[in-house]
Amino acid sequence: MSEHRVSRFPVPALDELPDDIRAAIELVQEKSGFVPNVFLALAHRPAEFRAFFAAHDALMDQSDGLSKAEREMIVVATSAVNDCLYCVVAHGAILRIRAKNPLIADQLAVNPWKADLSDRERLIVDFALRMVNDSASVTDADLDVLRQGGLTDDEIWDIGAITAFFAMSNRLANLTSMRPNDEFYAMAR
Amino acid sequence: MSEHRVSRFPVPALDELPDDIRAAIELVQEKSGFVPNVFLALAHRPAEFRAFFAAHDALMDQSDGLSKAEREMIVVATSAVNDCLYCVVAHGAILRIRAKNPLIADQLAVNPWKADLSDRERLIVDFALRMVNDSASVTDADLDVLRQGGLTDDEIWDIGAITAFFAMSNRLANLTSMRPNDEFYAMAR
Amino acid sequence: MSEHRVSRFPVPALDELPDDIRAAIELVQEKSGFVPNVFLALAHRPAEFRAFFAAHDALMDQSDGLSKAEREMIVVATSAVNDCLYCVVAHGAILRIRAKNPLIADQLAVNPWKADLSDRERLIVDFALRMVNDSASVTDADLDVLRQGGLTDDEIWDIGAITAFFAMSNRLANLTSMRPNDEFYAMAR
Amino acid sequence: MSEHRVSRFPVPALDELPDDIRAAIELVQEKSGFVPNVFLALAHRPAEFRAFFAAHDALMDQSDGLSKAEREMIVVATSAVNDCLYCVVAHGAILRIRAKNPLIADQLAVNPWKADLSDRERLIVDFALRMVNDSASVTDADLDVLRQGGLTDDEIWDIGAITAFFAMSNRLANLTSMRPNDEFYAMAR
Amino acid sequence: MSEHRVSRFPVPALDELPDDIRAAIELVQEKSGFVPNVFLALAHRPAEFRAFFAAHDALMDQSDGLSKAEREMIVVATSAVNDCLYCVVAHGAILRIRAKNPLIADQLAVNPWKADLSDRERLIVDFALRMVNDSASVTDADLDVLRQGGLTDDEIWDIGAITAFFAMSNRLANLTSMRPNDEFYAMAR
Amino acid sequence: MSEHRVSRFPVPALDELPDDIRAAIELVQEKSGFVPNVFLALAHRPAEFRAFFAAHDALMDQSDGLSKAEREMIVVATSAVNDCLYCVVAHGAILRIRAKNPLIADQLAVNPWKADLSDRERLIVDFALRMVNDSASVTDADLDVLRQGGLTDDEIWDIGAITAFFAMSNRLANLTSMRPNDEFYAMAR
Repeated sequence: MSEHRVSRFPVPALDELPDDIRAAIELVQEKSGFVPNVFLALAHRPAEFRAFFAAHDALMDQSDGLSKAEREMIVVATSAVNDCLYCVVAHGAILRIRAKNPLIADQLAVNPWKADLSDRERLIVDFALRMVNDSASVTDADLDVLRQGGLTDDEIWDIGAITAFFAMSNRLANLTSMRPNDEFYAMAR
Repeated sequence: MSEHRVSRFPVPALDELPDDIRAAIELVQEKSGFVPNVFLALAHRPAEFRAFFAAHDALMDQSDGLSKAEREMIVVATSAVNDCLYCVVAHGAILRIRAKNPLIADQLAVNPWKADLSDRERLIVDFALRMVNDSASVTDADLDVLRQGGLTDDEIWDIGAITAFFAMSNRLANLTSMRPNDEFYAMAR
Repeated sequence: MSEHRVSRFPVPALDELPDDIRAAIELVQEKSGFVPNVFLALAHRPAEFRAFFAAHDALMDQSDGLSKAEREMIVVATSAVNDCLYCVVAHGAILRIRAKNPLIADQLAVNPWKADLSDRERLIVDFALRMVNDSASVTDADLDVLRQGGLTDDEIWDIGAITAFFAMSNRLANLTSMRPNDEFYAMAR
Repeated sequence: MSEHRVSRFPVPALDELPDDIRAAIELVQEKSGFVPNVFLALAHRPAEFRAFFAAHDALMDQSDGLSKAEREMIVVATSAVNDCLYCVVAHGAILRIRAKNPLIADQLAVNPWKADLSDRERLIVDFALRMVNDSASVTDADLDVLRQGGLTDDEIWDIGAITAFFAMSNRLANLTSMRPNDEFYAMAR
Repeated sequence: MSEHRVSRFPVPALDELPDDIRAAIELVQEKSGFVPNVFLALAHRPAEFRAFFAAHDALMDQSDGLSKAEREMIVVATSAVNDCLYCVVAHGAILRIRAKNPLIADQLAVNPWKADLSDRERLIVDFALRMVNDSASVTDADLDVLRQGGLTDDEIWDIGAITAFFAMSNRLANLTSMRPNDEFYAMAR
Repeated sequence: MSEHRVSRFPVPALDELPDDIRAAIELVQEKSGFVPNVFLALAHRPAEFRAFFAAHDALMDQSDGLSKAEREMIVVATSAVNDCLYCVVAHGAILRIRAKNPLIADQLAVNPWKADLSDRERLIVDFALRMVNDSASVTDADLDVLRQGGLTDDEIWDIGAITAFFAMSNRLANLTSMRPNDEFYAMAR
């Protein structure tokens, strides 16, 4: 619909790309019906592209401990703190799908304290917000609170590591002025 | 010297690690004379370890455009904003070595506006601080200022991408309470 | 769809309400097909209800100077700063309708610096953000910048007064935990 | 005494005003001996003037639940947070009169934690400061603390609604650079 | 009038004090008609008392360069930023006397951007606010702006040094909960 | 090593100085082997110099209650909050000597929550950080917590007074761009 640019930096044509990156992009296009702009914007730097998606998949493409919906909740809530348009809009769509809930993404993005969360989700989101805003002062006592709330150490790591990964991702998206594909906005509403 | 723990989370023994990770650790030990704790702390999660160091090396182990010293300046100045003990102490040591300057790391960590920087370094550090504190409001006009100051678009990407990577790294270090090796503190003073 | 409460405070039944308030509510239901929860939540206090909507209509139901879409842009951008779920979701829907643009509300709510705005809209939104974040230090020189950008004094008043009205409205919605009607989320996407 | 302007925007002459607004102004002049500048500054917009004072009177001209002095304490403490010269000076004078206390207004404006407050007043002022600074994160648990401290739900609404109204009023005063009448400064010292 | 305590810490009786301190207190009582509480509160620590007033007098009891009124403007504006009740109330009284202006102290304490200041006073107050809020990033270029505005280097030092001294004084007053004498509030209104 | 200036303001030659100040400088040179730049920078204003060091010595040159190492911990942790290069570097060196700990200064300067502190030191540093960041809201209840943790009222005063003194000192150093002597950086590593 819109004709705005994908990134402030050069976006390579598909046929200029290394084979593995082109293949990854073609795969996501096949599955999603379109190529999310993050793939195009980061393809400008193939080595960084590969590391970025390896880290992303290690954290987001699994559901041991935290469910996939819980992982996306962390992304939306913390990306909203960093005012990251791409991550809030794109992962908001994914969250609506994963949680089968058309309202939760906007709730978490606008006011996470007023979102319809279970006690466990509340604990997860609150720690993610702590990690994005002030990770420096997190103490052992803070982790004990989470453990008493029923979270395992692996889940605590995941909350922190997902928040950390998107602290990077949000800044890359803001640096490149990465544009969310128009398709994401209305998906799964 | 100190007997404090390396991380809040489990640290695997070397012989429990996948071969490639053990090899990477042995290599750095050989080169440095000790194993920086970031290798041990992140080895808890092999897939994340691999992606982390792939991203790190793509950004930090090169000197096209930004010199290695300039890259480390970005790390120290932005990690200080995030109060990341591991990154300031470890990369402070590396910066002193790369810049052959025993004072610059402490200057950048404590008060980046009072550090002994060239005009080009000033521009680099100022944009890194902008990216760590408020990447959301960076506009095309901000990038034009950098270009007029002589920075190329590839250098601008690098400043932003290094800041973004350490926004992740700082949070991982704060999450795990990653302890800098005692060796770093006095190195290259 | 959801069965969550409309407000933390009592919500009167329609037949308990003063005639003028019940009539106002029936009118909006007829026009919109549902009763936006702000009418129900504020009906708890009839005198405040009447003054609130009188002020609202004086600022929002007109298009001299600022267009109706521009007025809604101010509401969405400033309500996002105040993390007001009701105002961002409800006025986001109205903005999509007024601006005939399915993307603009989410853009303004998440990152107003990256929204697709004309130069005039940019000036309007930037001053609204200044008024919500730091009205105290606004000087005559700030207003001169707006005048040089083509805004009339009546338009400047309207930007400030709309921001001021929603600074009140956002706090009332946060106080009452006012719930946006589910209908708003998907409207005009 | 001073010859400074009342507002940055046009101030209509009394005989240009609609009858009801002129009557309201003449009434306040009769009661107070002078016309507080807020009446003159807002008369620039008659519809907004009427709604503003209707909302003001609904919240401030009553003493069910919160006393009139308690209501003015909220105004002074929260207007000081917003650096609103008009509201702090004018309502400071009213507070000194209502509370029969020449010190309390300056105490609340400068350092509300050091003001001579009863336990009940302390609770009221603390919640008002929470509402002005961060209404978004107010939860049901926060309201329970107030209820346990002896406040009724109607009193809690009033604290929040008064804070909300003056969040609007402070921004209007800052927008217009509304000047407090010289008379207010020394009143009831 | 009030019977509240002077300080959270012990206040020595006059006849327990070292002779020089008792003499200093008797002198101020003779001149002012009462003993400002700062003398009583700090007398708890004679060595600190002597150094404090030596520093105070070196900066405040002179009028080379900055006038005495200008010096008090700096005190009131910066003490308000630090929410120091004692300094705002006591030095507000002194400022009203020095400037022969009953309004200026409240204006500077509540909203320094709206105070009735000359261009020179504007420059002085703005730099004082910069020094209290963010002295770390003050650069040579910032000082050049002041010089171009007509301030001498000695005046610039004085603005900074007075702000620095009251950054200490404000914290001592907040630590001790130092109570302004009731006499100050209404003085020179 | 470096040839950078000591201060932005004039630095008098030793033989231009009043006898007592020259004597003080010669004494410190004899003891330390070099003249710390704070002596040279402040000698520009003899009366302020004398008061500054009188206050400094009253707080720092004693070990009743707080040990000398504990006093330096307060200086380093709070000066880091104020981004004061001189104080962090110079007092970091003194702290390493006093505490016989080569790591503690960098730990406190970069992330005081991750420093190797005893429970008592933790309490001291936390209250110092509270005093530097927000002394205004310190209440009697806050002091009771410290007393319950085993601190005497004289120790509490000292924590607050040292923090207050360096709030002044940090601003003077930032004002003058006071340069730490190169000798401090590597001392006692």
